[in-house]
Amino acid sequence: MQPFAFTRKIYLEDVLREDARQKLLKRFAVSPETEWIPTVQARGRITAEPVYANLSMPHYHASAMDGIVVKAEETYGAHEHRPLTLELEKSFAYVDTGDPVQEPYNAVIMIENVNAIDERHVEIIEPATPWQHIRPVGEDVVAGEMLLPQGHRLRPVDLGALLAGGVLSVPVVQKPVVSIIPTGDELVEPKLDVKSGEIIEFNGTVFAGYLEEWGAQPRYAGIVKDDPERLRLALLDAVAQSDIVIMNAGSSAGSEDYTVHLIGELGEVITHGVATRPGKPVILGIIQDTIVVGLPGYPVSAYLAMEWFVRPLICKYLGIPEPKRDTLEVTLGRRIVSKMGSEDFVRMNVGYVDGRFVANPLTRAAGVTMSLVRADGLLVVPHDCLGYEQGEQVKLELYKPVEEIRKGIVFSGSHDLAIDVLSSLIRKRDVSRHILSSHTGSMAGIMAIRKGEAHVVGIHLLHEETGEYNIPFIKQYLKGQDVVLIRFLQREQGWIVPKGNPERIQSVEDMLQKELIYVNRQRGAGTRMLFDYMLKEKAVDPQSIKGYNREMFSHLSVAAAVKSGTAHTGLGIFSAAKAMDLDFVPLTFESYDLLMSRAFYESEGGSLLIEIMKSQEFAMQVERLGGYKLDRTGEPIDIKE
Amino acid sequence: MQPFAFTRKIYLEDVLREDARQKLLKRFAVSPETEWIPTVQARGRITAEPVYANLSMPHYHASAMDGIVVKAEETYGAHEHRPLTLELEKSFAYVDTGDPVQEPYNAVIMIENVNAIDERHVEIIEPATPWQHIRPVGEDVVAGEMLLPQGHRLRPVDLGALLAGGVLSVPVVQKPVVSIIPTGDELVEPKLDVKSGEIIEFNGTVFAGYLEEWGAQPRYAGIVKDDPERLRLALLDAVAQSDIVIMNAGSSAGSEDYTVHLIGELGEVITHGVATRPGKPVILGIIQDTIVVGLPGYPVSAYLAMEWFVRPLICKYLGIPEPKRDTLEVTLGRRIVSKMGSEDFVRMNVGYVDGRFVANPLTRAAGVTMSLVRADGLLVVPHDCLGYEQGEQVKLELYKPVEEIRKGIVFSGSHDLAIDVLSSLIRKRDVSRHILSSHTGSMAGIMAIRKGEAHVVGIHLLHEETGEYNIPFIKQYLKGQDVVLIRFLQREQGWIVPKGNPERIQSVEDMLQKELIYVNRQRGAGTRMLFDYMLKEKAVDPQSIKGYNREMFSHLSVAAAVKSGTAHTGLGIFSAAKAMDLDFVPLTFESYDLLMSRAFYESEGGSLLIEIMKSQEFAMQVERLGGYKLDRTGEPIDIKE
Repeated sequence: MQPFAFTRKIYLEDVLREDARQKLLKRFAVSPETEWIPTVQARGRITAEPVYANLSMPHYHASAMDGIVVKAEETYGAHEHRPLTLELEKSFAYVDTGDPVQEPYNAVIMIENVNAIDERHVEIIEPATPWQHIRPVGEDVVAGEMLLPQGHRLRPVDLGALLAGGVLSVPVVQKPVVSIIPTGDELVEPKLDVKSGEIIEFNGTVFAGYLEEWGAQPRYAGIVKDDPERLRLALLDAVAQSDIVIMNAGSSAGSEDYTVHLIGELGEVITHGVATRPGKPVILGIIQDTIVVGLPGYPVSAYLAMEWFVRPLICKYLGIPEPKRDTLEVTLGRRIVSKMGSEDFVRMNVGYVDGRFVANPLTRAAGVTMSLVRADGLLVVPHDCLGYEQGEQVKLELYKPVEEIRKGIVFSGSHDLAIDVLSSLIRKRDVSRHILSSHTGSMAGIMAIRKGEAHVVGIHLLHEETGEYNIPFIKQYLKGQDVVLIRFLQREQGWIVPKGNPERIQSVEDMLQKELIYVNRQRGAGTRMLFDYMLKEKAVDPQSIKGYNREMFSHLSVAAAVKSGTAHTGLGIFSAAKAMDLDFVPLTFESYDLLMSRAFYESEGGSLLIEIMKSQEFAMQVERLGGYKLDRTGEPIDIKE
Repeated sequence: MQPFAFTRKIYLEDVLREDARQKLLKRFAVSPETEWIPTVQARGRITAEPVYANLSMPHYHASAMDGIVVKAEETYGAHEHRPLTLELEKSFAYVDTGDPVQEPYNAVIMIENVNAIDERHVEIIEPATPWQHIRPVGEDVVAGEMLLPQGHRLRPVDLGALLAGGVLSVPVVQKPVVSIIPTGDELVEPKLDVKSGEIIEFNGTVFAGYLEEWGAQPRYAGIVKDDPERLRLALLDAVAQSDIVIMNAGSSAGSEDYTVHLIGELGEVITHGVATRPGKPVILGIIQDTIVVGLPGYPVSAYLAMEWFVRPLICKYLGIPEPKRDTLEVTLGRRIVSKMGSEDFVRMNVGYVDGRFVANPLTRAAGVTMSLVRADGLLVVPHDCLGYEQGEQVKLELYKPVEEIRKGIVFSGSHDLAIDVLSSLIRKRDVSRHILSSHTGSMAGIMAIRKGEAHVVGIHLLHEETGEYNIPFIKQYLKGQDVVLIRFLQREQGWIVPKGNPERIQSVEDMLQKELIYVNRQRGAGTRMLFDYMLKEKAVDPQSIKGYNREMFSHLSVAAAVKSGTAHTGLGIFSAAKAMDLDFVPLTFESYDLLMSRAFYESEGGSLLIEIMKSQEFAMQVERLGGYKLDRTGEPIDIKE
């Protein structure tokens, strides 16, 4: 809220990401230190130099069999028809596999070929050849042989080989220290009673997590307020203690400004601004050989930029190649528009429907952490590309194993909290399955089935003329398609109102009389259509309803608007009102059904879904939500003429 | 060494692995406990139940832009031709992105569209619509919405979303406790002075590493000697404290026997013996609801069996699907023979040569840990399959990213310690490259080039008739193939003898006179051919040389044989003698050259290899090994007529 905002002028470049990366890597003067640590604690660390065996494997002549050791020369006379008797401790001894074979013995006879006569004597019927069934010293590895090269990430099995080779401590690359400085007046450490205008500092936890996964040692410096002097001290302190420093601007533009000036003053700004969306306002600099990376405040921008610029530094320091994600060829369910001149990074959901992978973009807002949480993959649109058309084939970087994507059940259409229950129970039954759910509204759900982009969709569409639910729409839009409509829930719709219903809302008329503010649902949503049906019935002009044009995408968002006081009421379901601790004025029960292709209905996933819907556990959990009636849930509805 | 070995009778079943697994899983009574831990420490843990947002995102109406907040109703008159003046704190306030928007304000105007007049006044030329540039409460996530399902492994970004959603502690599945009991009289904890017959206990470290990676809590119970009473106590103690117990038999068959009887006595043996090679002698049992898995003593068997039987238990407990490895289609470089009725698990090396992935088996001995360390992938031959022919296409489970395999340089033929130097320097120059080296001998190396199974091979083949090195063999075996022979090293061959050369060996004649024992190299090895050449020159019958038929596969193995006293001498190179602290009687310099296809020679990898060979650093490091002369190293040799 500072008038300072007026005077600031931030000039951002549009450097290509790869150019910025190369420039940065060139400036990173790597001087990794080696530390010797006990082998038993070295899992996940990177070898700093080649490691050689101290001990041969085996390190003594070892019996390869259970049996007896003999002197081969003494056995030459043994024959089937002329068994040879040997005396214990004089001409043979018992050995188990792995036991040492020592002078004067030089061969092993398998126990199966030995005939015990008494406690002290055995008979053999075949001569032994020298060194038979003996693993000589160094058969597998000879002392001095290289066990592992440098730059090798130590897996459990490597530790086994090192220990077997007598290597009890191992030279590994010290972890590079990366300081994290979150900046911004609005930031607070995680706490329960967050006030308006306060933002919980969570980027630091995310950064630290990635740094640990990449093999670095995070050092959390704590939140620094937007004060130039404090920022300078924190930065100088971090530079002195670290190989790399991450400064994370708050969402306030002011702090970003401090960062770039500070780096310029104390060292050198290498790049300020890369040609990416999101992630543009990245700052790459250097102070006394320490790289300083200024990451944007928006979470998604920050995490992406960290992967572009911080991870390569860590890999260079550790001497390992940068890991690459698996990729997957997908069909685009929607058009993706991109700006010329900047690389676009679009978080995508991917479903496997009708034998192909269909991908749809999640929100592109850089502030929405959940878009990264929910993403199955990332679409990178090059800087010289204007985007892709719907139906085009593109390659995604995968965030999840393709096996997991392949087994996901793609749910679309209208959202309901009972879908979360379904999702949770499915996972409980079969851990390899999950429901991939997006809230698009009932009509969009029908279209998704038509285009083969979803396995199952939730719909609750009231037909204006017939007053019938769902079936008329299926007949109209899915003519000739083999689909199954499954009875799901009778769901109560009503007015979501503040606790105690202070405006005493019972009808549309109440709203009009008191000029109350309504919060609406998006076009194509069943609840929107219910409201429109009510208005038409009462001959009310939609535009006379205050707030009619403000659209929310879910019941919970409507409830949230009422809760926050930006609307007096909205239509929605009981469970949403309950979740936000609001009151609910019941209006009508509607049929919320599940529509699916016959192929999915008859698949393993479909059967599982139906089975769970019909289960006692599902009924109980839905009952607990309130506002539902279950009636023949899971049974197909006849949609024939 | 107990006569006890005689009376034992172990009847092993041949249960199919999948059947054994299903039976075991069915018996594992899962009762995972939930624990609440701070979100900031929850990375890598598995959610025990769905997690819901406590706080909406945003949790207050937040400005989406840098600019000013206004009351929309007051701005309706603003127009390009009739700018509207607003007064600070009366009708507007400054906001940065993320700042809260509070009553009475209800719209944000971007700073770019605001004209500052003085410290207290601004002008606007466009009206604002209510709620423009405001992110209302819950736009991204509404309090009460599900953030994550149960059975979700928490990634750094998930922690961010949880914290942003006001979830400061999170319910995760407690890690299942898995006790590890290594058993065997021969086992010792890792130490430097290992005696003959002692084996360093390293399986426990490997098990613990895998358990941690899979999400369990290992509990190392310490080595237990092969004593029934001690084993019983250790097992009962472990059962009381763990969800799963691993007993690891020493390589001695006796201890395995104790384990199965003990489990049967204290509980129930579910399966004893699975139809796999290696891994057959697995024991699966249950004592008081705790699963007890008896793993074989041989490392490779133990690690494979652990993945088959222990990992599924852990995944079931945690409620997550079992991870699967990527697979790769490869061409077999050699025939793979398998036994009917048992699944074979063959560790394989994979190289990318001439546009195809060629795979060759490593040793199949279950005791050789290095075979797992060196493996790029695993070939599973089903129990009803007799194996595969050379050249057949098969699918491997990958142990390494395919990208790493694709960039590997496949080295074969004769081995030399200078190859390790080359390997280490290549990795230093380009961390994404490595040399995949197998020791097959010079002749096998030539054949590998002929069949397109190696990029580069080391050869030092003395031609009996011409006394010329390498070129005659290339002309004979690679007629018409476009290959390049690169000058590498002049290498000194000689007698490797014990310190002080007690037998004063200088020649073949010395050996014959004193009836000394020689240790030979395998057929096709250059050193073997050198020895044969010498014998022929002196008209000595090879069979008059004691030990002529004992074949070693490397210089170091020859040196090891001399070191251990099982041979008086062997032919080999100086660096091998030096590595084992032995003496060396020089005999002759030989040409050890590198042979490669022209395609590889002209590739990026080939250029890098040549560049490094010619470097000062390579010369210095080879000099340090001793026994080499470098002369125009890295230059092509003319092999035309």
